[in-house]
Amino acid sequence: MIKDGWFMEKGELWPGQAMCLEVEEVLEQCSSKYQEILVFKSKTYGNVFVLDGVIQCTERDEFAYQEMISHLPLYSHPNPEKVLIVGGGDGGVLREVLKHSPVKKVVQCELDEMVVELSKKYLPNMSSAYSDERCELVIGDGLEFMKRHKSEFDVIVTDSSDPVGPAKRLFEMPYYEAMHTCLKPGGLICTQGECMWLHANLIQPLVWSCRRIYAVVEYAYTSIPTYPSGQIGFILCSKNPETKFREPLRKPSEKELADLKYYNSEIHSAAFVLPNFARRSLLS
Amino acid sequence: MIKDGWFMEKGELWPGQAMCLEVEEVLEQCSSKYQEILVFKSKTYGNVFVLDGVIQCTERDEFAYQEMISHLPLYSHPNPEKVLIVGGGDGGVLREVLKHSPVKKVVQCELDEMVVELSKKYLPNMSSAYSDERCELVIGDGLEFMKRHKSEFDVIVTDSSDPVGPAKRLFEMPYYEAMHTCLKPGGLICTQGECMWLHANLIQPLVWSCRRIYAVVEYAYTSIPTYPSGQIGFILCSKNPETKFREPLRKPSEKELADLKYYNSEIHSAAFVLPNFARRSLLS
Repeated sequence: MIKDGWFMEKGELWPGQAMCLEVEEVLEQCSSKYQEILVFKSKTYGNVFVLDGVIQCTERDEFAYQEMISHLPLYSHPNPEKVLIVGGGDGGVLREVLKHSPVKKVVQCELDEMVVELSKKYLPNMSSAYSDERCELVIGDGLEFMKRHKSEFDVIVTDSSDPVGPAKRLFEMPYYEAMHTCLKPGGLICTQGECMWLHANLIQPLVWSCRRIYAVVEYAYTSIPTYPSGQIGFILCSKNPETKFREPLRKPSEKELADLKYYNSEIHSAAFVLPNFARRSLLS
Repeated sequence: MIKDGWFMEKGELWPGQAMCLEVEEVLEQCSSKYQEILVFKSKTYGNVFVLDGVIQCTERDEFAYQEMISHLPLYSHPNPEKVLIVGGGDGGVLREVLKHSPVKKVVQCELDEMVVELSKKYLPNMSSAYSDERCELVIGDGLEFMKRHKSEFDVIVTDSSDPVGPAKRLFEMPYYEAMHTCLKPGGLICTQGECMWLHANLIQPLVWSCRRIYAVVEYAYTSIPTYPSGQIGFILCSKNPETKFREPLRKPSEKELADLKYYNSEIHSAAFVLPNFARRSLLS
């Protein structure tokens, strides 16, 4: 994957294209029980975390993804007290979720303990929130966890890798059904929703299936340079038919806003506005 | 630039990162009077046009850029009858501008005739509009052209390459001043505005200088996979202090909308909503 000093991100989900980042130093290269892990220091994107050859995050632009996948659902909920994060072992979503003052308890359920350990070592700005006393870390399978916890969470955020390998099940309907039963009445979810430029054939059936289970289903997206095609989307679903995801129920205070690099209430609404090709391919 | 069957886009304006596209066949490789030109057929992005090592457009995603750089200013003008395009020799902006029924005349001013010729050969879907009788093609320098034409255009679109090499002058104030005198009263401009993720140090002083010349100055952006970091911006300026770029004055009809793959009136407004880091670095 590293050649002549450059990491090249080829992948079967984005044939014919690849993002390259210049490598300064390889920090870690190992296999966990579930996947191949690579951590390197890049020339211009800080430390970079790679699973099975795919960039999971870079220190330079991670905030765009972490803020949007967290704050789109949390500012859409009137009072998110209890939150479940599935995946997201790097701690970035946890850091953002804990910025919300209504949040009393967060369960972080990550399959691969080694992801948590290596994030604590190499991504200190993302993993710092693990020390918060509101956080409970569960190492295990998200789907199994949810089967044991009914009607318990206000918001569930699924920060998964791509639907190849260990995360494949997180893009299938039994997982979306399990989230539904694990949510309290009126609860809502936000899941990593791949890229409208690349994966319409994957997103569209998922959105349609969700509409059979949830009262409200929407698709939003954010710009982020180091994900394939520079963009990633989110599937947001609510049990509450009154939920209007485009109109956030709460807004960050001035103090909270000063701590956000990407999210604001206007970009919350704008994130749901799709270009025509995506409207046609995803929603119709 | 092509190695092991992949084109790699390294560039001094995006150090440490590079987009790669898999090459099926090199169609053309030559030098014009002004620049090195490469055209190749890619595996998954159709034909790709490259100037001095930098991707200018691919057949698969060009519509996002062409539509947004054209329709953001044109739908913001009440009656755009006469339009000047500087650069844009591939014909993509011309194709979009001519979709507006008020447009009676378009002058396309491109420095490099070879760009026009090769586009006609390899990008037929972009260059087709050259045959429209409302179009006048001028081969020459945009700045010099504008000095000879005062108060003549309703809208000027500058579709330039990056501020390295022949297009450098198009990012400097004499060029923005010349556009101002070349516009009719109430006229407006839209220029290629680089990437907020990469070029805040370039965009910010430009935006601030424009505010000394134009009554209204705004920054907008579009998603596009094959530009560096998957995104490109636009600087929009108006002589008319009443212009509200975020609220388009005209809307595409249903028939016109069916012919657009990216632009709609909602994404017009959303394109001006910046993430916090860009608000802070570009506008303040």
